[in-house]
Amino acid sequence: MSTTLLSHIKRYIELDEQEEKTILACVQSLHIKKKEYLLKEGQICKASYFVEKGCLRMFFVSDKGDEHTNNFALENWWLSDYSTLLTQKPSLFYIQAIENSDILVLTTEQQEVLSKEIPKIERYFRLILQRAYGASQIRFKHTYNLSREDMYRNFLGLHPEFVNRVPQYMLASYLGFTPEYLSEIRKKKI
Amino acid sequence: MSTTLLSHIKRYIELDEQEEKTILACVQSLHIKKKEYLLKEGQICKASYFVEKGCLRMFFVSDKGDEHTNNFALENWWLSDYSTLLTQKPSLFYIQAIENSDILVLTTEQQEVLSKEIPKIERYFRLILQRAYGASQIRFKHTYNLSREDMYRNFLGLHPEFVNRVPQYMLASYLGFTPEYLSEIRKKKI
Repeated sequence: MSTTLLSHIKRYIELDEQEEKTILACVQSLHIKKKEYLLKEGQICKASYFVEKGCLRMFFVSDKGDEHTNNFALENWWLSDYSTLLTQKPSLFYIQAIENSDILVLTTEQQEVLSKEIPKIERYFRLILQRAYGASQIRFKHTYNLSREDMYRNFLGLHPEFVNRVPQYMLASYLGFTPEYLSEIRKKKI
Repeated sequence: MSTTLLSHIKRYIELDEQEEKTILACVQSLHIKKKEYLLKEGQICKASYFVEKGCLRMFFVSDKGDEHTNNFALENWWLSDYSTLLTQKPSLFYIQAIENSDILVLTTEQQEVLSKEIPKIERYFRLILQRAYGASQIRFKHTYNLSREDMYRNFLGLHPEFVNRVPQYMLASYLGFTPEYLSEIRKKKI
């Protein structure tokens, strides 16, 4: 159990046996069924979620009532509402499982404990966040610059594993177009 | 000199006198004139930039040749192309001064030195990146959800200091509309 997380951390920093035990003592395992929520709009986000198996998405509901997916997380990805984790203000987002998923929960309190016991864990989280923030800078450019078809091709190239696991309407909203348009592009490809 | 950076770091972690000296030895001061560049598309980004005085922007040039600003940085803000810092692939972005600016340059190599000498500095950078990434998650929601006028009002509420320092066409491209439209909204407000 949780060897996934330890392997992921060891890509970035070294860990001895005692440190591995400390990390496992700081996270909680959670099995969550498809469509269940880890966070809803208006709640205060109190944890980061690491996907051991399955898939999560983060989305918001527009004033018109439409759902827009802004992030996905497959195996080995962390997901959270990082702003409200810091501010402890009510979240603007939902986090939901889109498959039956095995999740590791790291609460803000436990992250602080971990940070005191294993200070170098901060390096791991810094690098994870740097990668995520860098990807979001690039996504802004693509959103403005690429045609909708190129957006889809680019996403497919980066994350081929998503396309068969994520419902079309969620992928469409992530890429910023309608499910009908996505369906057209996919047909063209075939 | 550089007390700005030390004060900023000390909002997040404690530093003794020796650690302060180590930090100052790891950064280089740079005076950069308005319109000069710290990074151009195609170059490999080798540093993060901290604004002591002045203002930077990060932008990209679309395939049609238009400039789109995706980030600003005023006093006490860090700015970099965080993706190419990690991958060392050519950047998709430009970083430019929009006022005469005093910058502190932290190269990737010096950041590694700093990280070895003062491991807790990783906590500072983790928190800075968490804040930046959290803000970008919220920006995605606003971009989809808010009317263009509300986008402007929201930005004005968060960063009133920008409006008189940043040229209108840059602010307009950051908010995703034309300079003419921004000018209309500003007139309405008056």
